[in-house]
Amino acid sequence: MFTRLLAPLVLVTVSGIAYGQSFTPKDMAAAAELRDRAMNDNTAYELVTSLTTEVGPRAAGSPGDRAAVEWAERNLRRLGFSSVRRMDVIVPHWVRGTASFEVRSPYPQSMPVLALGGSIGTADTGLTADIVMVDNLAALKALPPGAVKDRIVFFAGRTERTRDGSGYGKAVQVRAQGPSAAAALGAIGVVIRSIGTSNNRFPHTGALSYNISAPRIPAVALSNPDADALERQVASGKPVTVSMTVSARDLPQTLSANVIGEIPGTDPNAEIVLVGAHLDSWDPGTGALDDGAGVAIVMTAAKLIRETNPKPRRTIRVVLFANEEFGLSGSLTYANKIDEEFSRHAVALESDFGAGPVLQLASRVPANLLPAIQAVQEVVAPLGVEPGGNEANGGADLAPLRRLGMPLIGPQLDGTNYFDVHHTANDTLDQVDPEHIRQAAAVYAVSAYLAAQLPVSWGRNTTPTPAPN
Amino acid sequence: MFTRLLAPLVLVTVSGIAYGQSFTPKDMAAAAELRDRAMNDNTAYELVTSLTTEVGPRAAGSPGDRAAVEWAERNLRRLGFSSVRRMDVIVPHWVRGTASFEVRSPYPQSMPVLALGGSIGTADTGLTADIVMVDNLAALKALPPGAVKDRIVFFAGRTERTRDGSGYGKAVQVRAQGPSAAAALGAIGVVIRSIGTSNNRFPHTGALSYNISAPRIPAVALSNPDADALERQVASGKPVTVSMTVSARDLPQTLSANVIGEIPGTDPNAEIVLVGAHLDSWDPGTGALDDGAGVAIVMTAAKLIRETNPKPRRTIRVVLFANEEFGLSGSLTYANKIDEEFSRHAVALESDFGAGPVLQLASRVPANLLPAIQAVQEVVAPLGVEPGGNEANGGADLAPLRRLGMPLIGPQLDGTNYFDVHHTANDTLDQVDPEHIRQAAAVYAVSAYLAAQLPVSWGRNTTPTPAPN
Repeated sequence: MFTRLLAPLVLVTVSGIAYGQSFTPKDMAAAAELRDRAMNDNTAYELVTSLTTEVGPRAAGSPGDRAAVEWAERNLRRLGFSSVRRMDVIVPHWVRGTASFEVRSPYPQSMPVLALGGSIGTADTGLTADIVMVDNLAALKALPPGAVKDRIVFFAGRTERTRDGSGYGKAVQVRAQGPSAAAALGAIGVVIRSIGTSNNRFPHTGALSYNISAPRIPAVALSNPDADALERQVASGKPVTVSMTVSARDLPQTLSANVIGEIPGTDPNAEIVLVGAHLDSWDPGTGALDDGAGVAIVMTAAKLIRETNPKPRRTIRVVLFANEEFGLSGSLTYANKIDEEFSRHAVALESDFGAGPVLQLASRVPANLLPAIQAVQEVVAPLGVEPGGNEANGGADLAPLRRLGMPLIGPQLDGTNYFDVHHTANDTLDQVDPEHIRQAAAVYAVSAYLAAQLPVSWGRNTTPTPAPN
Repeated sequence: MFTRLLAPLVLVTVSGIAYGQSFTPKDMAAAAELRDRAMNDNTAYELVTSLTTEVGPRAAGSPGDRAAVEWAERNLRRLGFSSVRRMDVIVPHWVRGTASFEVRSPYPQSMPVLALGGSIGTADTGLTADIVMVDNLAALKALPPGAVKDRIVFFAGRTERTRDGSGYGKAVQVRAQGPSAAAALGAIGVVIRSIGTSNNRFPHTGALSYNISAPRIPAVALSNPDADALERQVASGKPVTVSMTVSARDLPQTLSANVIGEIPGTDPNAEIVLVGAHLDSWDPGTGALDDGAGVAIVMTAAKLIRETNPKPRRTIRVVLFANEEFGLSGSLTYANKIDEEFSRHAVALESDFGAGPVLQLASRVPANLLPAIQAVQEVVAPLGVEPGGNEANGGADLAPLRRLGMPLIGPQLDGTNYFDVHHTANDTLDQVDPEHIRQAAAVYAVSAYLAAQLPVSWGRNTTPTPAPN
């Protein structure tokens, strides 16, 4: 589909010069060549195949996490990266165990659930209580006093399907804050409708965030079809009594690592272009879309840049962050450890939204650099990439750098179906389209390459950035 | 979608008279009215909602099976059926327990599996062995002697997606015969790629059939994405060592029941039109498509006929068979018990292929009655139903009657997506489209009503019928 769009090469190059006066014609031609080469390169699909097949799930602290760090070092070296190294990161080590959920009355049924990440366990005998169904946090707070005391709260609100992930952003507050909000009102457990858009019978996991001022209570997620079935039990008008057990537990914190590799720039005094993704995944699937695809995209983009002439002036640094999923300790550690090296970071990109295709090229850069972003977009326009505005967030792992004013280039991937599989057992290799991931790697390669060639400084953003995500 | 197709009512009725000289104009008009009423009746969707919500999974011999029998009696009475009764059926009582499957080397991964129905369990310590991958039974038999001795055989062949279920029919031989075929050659366990077309990470269950001349060995199914991943491990060229545990076991046989209800015909000497479906289901899902939808369709069709004038001349008998899934003991018992009452059975229909829509009206009737089938098809043609030939099989529960020459009317439902969810955890209510199941109920209602009105005898088929399915 994308191949036939590559015809107007000369036109784009000329147009690129017209808009992006800061790039040399040679750089623009090299970027177009890089784009076309990337569209015929299968490395990204091979890498995500290898990571999901040979490592599989890799939750922070697990054996898979350690295997992933070794996999990353081995493959960065194999692809010709320099300065391949680990940066130690302290990570939590939560063990999921098993979880069960049984409706006792009015209509006995067993429904598959997953503990929310970080949930405490129950006693072996579990919890048994009537449920109180609410749509969201506001509805919980509007209940009369005592309404949820000694009950299990069922958050039934749905996640809206959107292209940009905004539906997830709204719905996920219930997962993060729901357990403590319910506990503060006397509830003894929480069950949520999965924060996901699929009607497949897979519960969706993801981290909760206990509030220090409320008791910790166990929390699980039901798939959408089971949440529907539980709603129908509530609709019977009879009290709905459920039992739940969770055997999750926290083990002592352990060490993982950010894995770093570089394509050295030709100018030893030039800065760094950071291209990031996260190496950890949730455990029910094999982390193909979240974020095996991102790991594969950024490794492939840098590998393709290594084979480009002229060589990049700035260094391309690939950072595969530890533990994005469960507290962002990898990116927080990175932001702390680079400290004075921060000034050497010119601009950053992250890939953590699936396997493509890229629909828009967004950014968050000083206004004087918008023509450069436009020039980049012109090069990838034949791949179906439109302009995307200057309000990119860059992804969760870039938040610490973003708050410090780091300029960002933000390729916006199509998220329409992302929350069908994200954080579920269904996040497996078959969800990755080889053609889409090639396109995404091409967009990241062109963006990072031209970012390295910009002859002027990327500067810093001075406008306020959104709250951390 | 179907509503706007109902306009050419008069035309169809007239045309129906032209082709189906055996039906009176009054009957043809009543059939058209019944069709239109059915297309505005939500009973089928309400019934499948009720069965899946209030009973859920109902494997033969389980508590859900008993609850389903009670549900059926209660709802047949509520809908105004006469002679509501149980026919006792002895059923097996196999308990699934749990099953696990771990690749030990070259790349450790845990993969969700389901035991095949009837599988024996393993010792608590499970089995550990290298796998031998083959595509199908023929490939197994072509291996050199001793090739699978003390190994676990992995049947990797895929199920082809077809509209009529023929892809399933071919692939399912591996599930039925694979375990004993492998055991006869010395294998100690079997793992199969699920006999299903979905890329969702749900293993697919269904009964195996142990051959008395081979040792019984445990057998499990992997989802398609996991079978792909296991193939990739094999493709590494390294030996693939796996461990599997199964805690399934057989309990003593127990009693279930065929549940029967009737809409009495106006002529006490007239025969019976049998309309069947099966009440049991596999346990991973809630049996919405297989065969809650069929139960709902045939109950609704008969209930709508009850409200039709002129009243049916022959009796409409709804039979909700016990235990289709695990040996067909309900239909075998029925065929045995009716014995001399067999002669009173005029024609039979079964609904056991999902929730619609019906694409074709097939049959298996004596040639002189083909104009009558054509007349029925003319009435449902505005619902998108085409002629379907005279080679209908009628469904598994009708096999014993079919072999005795019973004429069949066989509405052919669209099976394109049926094997995406059939026998998996995903067989839940959200898979049922309310509009499609209304259409299916309408087709069954019209077919059964006109079958009851045929003024001549339905006779018997004399041509050989296919082997039992």
